[in-house]
Amino acid sequence: MGTRYEASILRYKPADDITRYVSDWLLRHISKLDNSPHIEIEAKLGILLDKRSSQRLFISSVETEAVISQNEMRFIRFQSDMTIDQHGNFNRLLNKAVADLKGAVKYTHRYEVDTFYPPSRGEAERVRVSVDKKTDEVIATIQKKRIADLNVYNPSSKLDYRISLNMEVPAEMPYSDQDAIYSRDKDRMSYVYQAVQIDLTQVTDSIKNEKVHELEVELASSETLLREKEKLDNRQPNQFQEIVGVLLNNVRVLAKEANKFQR
Amino acid sequence: MGTRYEASILRYKPADDITRYVSDWLLRHISKLDNSPHIEIEAKLGILLDKRSSQRLFISSVETEAVISQNEMRFIRFQSDMTIDQHGNFNRLLNKAVADLKGAVKYTHRYEVDTFYPPSRGEAERVRVSVDKKTDEVIATIQKKRIADLNVYNPSSKLDYRISLNMEVPAEMPYSDQDAIYSRDKDRMSYVYQAVQIDLTQVTDSIKNEKVHELEVELASSETLLREKEKLDNRQPNQFQEIVGVLLNNVRVLAKEANKFQR
Repeated sequence: MGTRYEASILRYKPADDITRYVSDWLLRHISKLDNSPHIEIEAKLGILLDKRSSQRLFISSVETEAVISQNEMRFIRFQSDMTIDQHGNFNRLLNKAVADLKGAVKYTHRYEVDTFYPPSRGEAERVRVSVDKKTDEVIATIQKKRIADLNVYNPSSKLDYRISLNMEVPAEMPYSDQDAIYSRDKDRMSYVYQAVQIDLTQVTDSIKNEKVHELEVELASSETLLREKEKLDNRQPNQFQEIVGVLLNNVRVLAKEANKFQR
Repeated sequence: MGTRYEASILRYKPADDITRYVSDWLLRHISKLDNSPHIEIEAKLGILLDKRSSQRLFISSVETEAVISQNEMRFIRFQSDMTIDQHGNFNRLLNKAVADLKGAVKYTHRYEVDTFYPPSRGEAERVRVSVDKKTDEVIATIQKKRIADLNVYNPSSKLDYRISLNMEVPAEMPYSDQDAIYSRDKDRMSYVYQAVQIDLTQVTDSIKNEKVHELEVELASSETLLREKEKLDNRQPNQFQEIVGVLLNNVRVLAKEANKFQR
C-alpha cells in the first residue's frame, strides 16, 4: 500500500507549470473572443523544426519539457507529421485502449474529403466543405480561423507538441463547385473518451499528393470548457484547469509511447 | 462535485517532466554512491544569477519551469538568499501551517554554531562541528561533500530553486579548537512534515559578518528514500518518484507563495 503523503505542507498540489501556463493563455484568448461557442482547442503531436539547422529543435540550456516563447518561434516551424510506423503503433495502442475501457471509448473510422473554396466577399477565411465519402453527406461547412498556437518542447520524447486555439464558424455552402481551390482526403480514426477526442488521421493533399500522418487530441466539447470558464470568471469552484490538464496529459502519455516504437 | 475525469485514455497520469528528470538523476547518482545511507537530498529556494548580466537568469526561448543543463551552468550561479521580508513571510506562513495541521508538523527553533576545521590527513572535506548554543551540546560532527546539483529555472515565481545531493559522513571530533577555520551562526526554524523537513535559517558568517536568509526543503529520511529505491531496483511497486515529487511540490508551493509577498 505504501505511505500516504500530502502533496505539500500547504496541503495542495501545484498544477504543473505548463498546465498553468496553457490555462492562463487559453483564458486570456477565449475572453478576447467573448467566450465564443465556436472555439476549437486541439493539440497535435509532431516535431519542432529549427529552421536554422533543418533539424529537430534542441535547446542546449534546458533539459525538460517547456513552452517555447513566441519570439523564439521565428526560428522554428512545427511539423505535424510522424512516420507511418508510429502512426500504425498509435492505432494499435488506441485500439487496445478501446478494448481495455470496455465501451467507454467511442470509436469511428471515417473517410472524408475536405474541399476548400475562396473566402466569401469581405471575408478572410476560406470555406471548407467536408463530405463523408461513403455516404456523400456533407458533414460540415465551416470557416476555420487560427487564433493562436503554443508550442511545447518535449526533449524526453521523440515528439514535441503544439496546442492550437481556432475558431470554427459555420458557413454557407458555396454556390458552385467550380471555385474549389483544392481538396484533401482524410482517412480518420477517432477515439472519443470523456473530455477528449483523439484523431489519428492520414491526410492526402490533392495538389502535393503527399500523405501526412497526424495525431490530434482535441477537447470533445468546447461548451464544457466554456461552462467551467464561466464558473471560474464568477469565482466559483471549477474544473477549467483540470480539463486543460486532461488534454495535456493525453498528449503526454501518447508522446511517451512514441519512444517505445521503432521509427 | 464536478465530473470525474481519468487522467488520460491510457488511464495513468504522467509524472511531470521535472519530477521524472530529478528522479532519474537521483537514481543514477545514488547508485554510483552504492546506496550510501549518508546521502542528504535538499532543495533550496533562491535566485539563478546570470554571471554575464549580474541579473536574475532570463531564458528568452522558454516560458515555463525547466531544469537548466549543466553546460549552461557555466554562465550561472545559484544564490541561496532571499529578502528578510520574504523570510519573515515564510515564517508566518509555516507557523500557520503548523496550526492548521494540528500536531502533524514538528516545529523546532534552534540557535547553532557551525565551526569548520581543516580536513583530516588524506581527506578532502573539512570537518564541521555543530553546537547547540543554548545547551552547548555537540549536535553533529560531519564531513559534508557536495555530490551534484540540479538547478531549476522558475520564471513564474520570484524564486528559482536548486536540488542538491550531498554526502554527510560522521567524522571524528577535531582535537583542538585552535585549528578552526571559521564559524557561522545559524538561527534555524525547522518544520518536519511527513517526508520533508523545511528549514528557515538566518546564517551569519564569522568572516564576512553578513546575514543570509535561506529556505531549504530536505528529505527528512534518506533511509525511507533508499528503501523505496531498493524496491524500484527489484522492480517492486514503490514510492521513489512520489517522494521526489513531494519534495518538489513543497518547494513549488513555497516558491509560489513568495510572489504574494512584498519584496
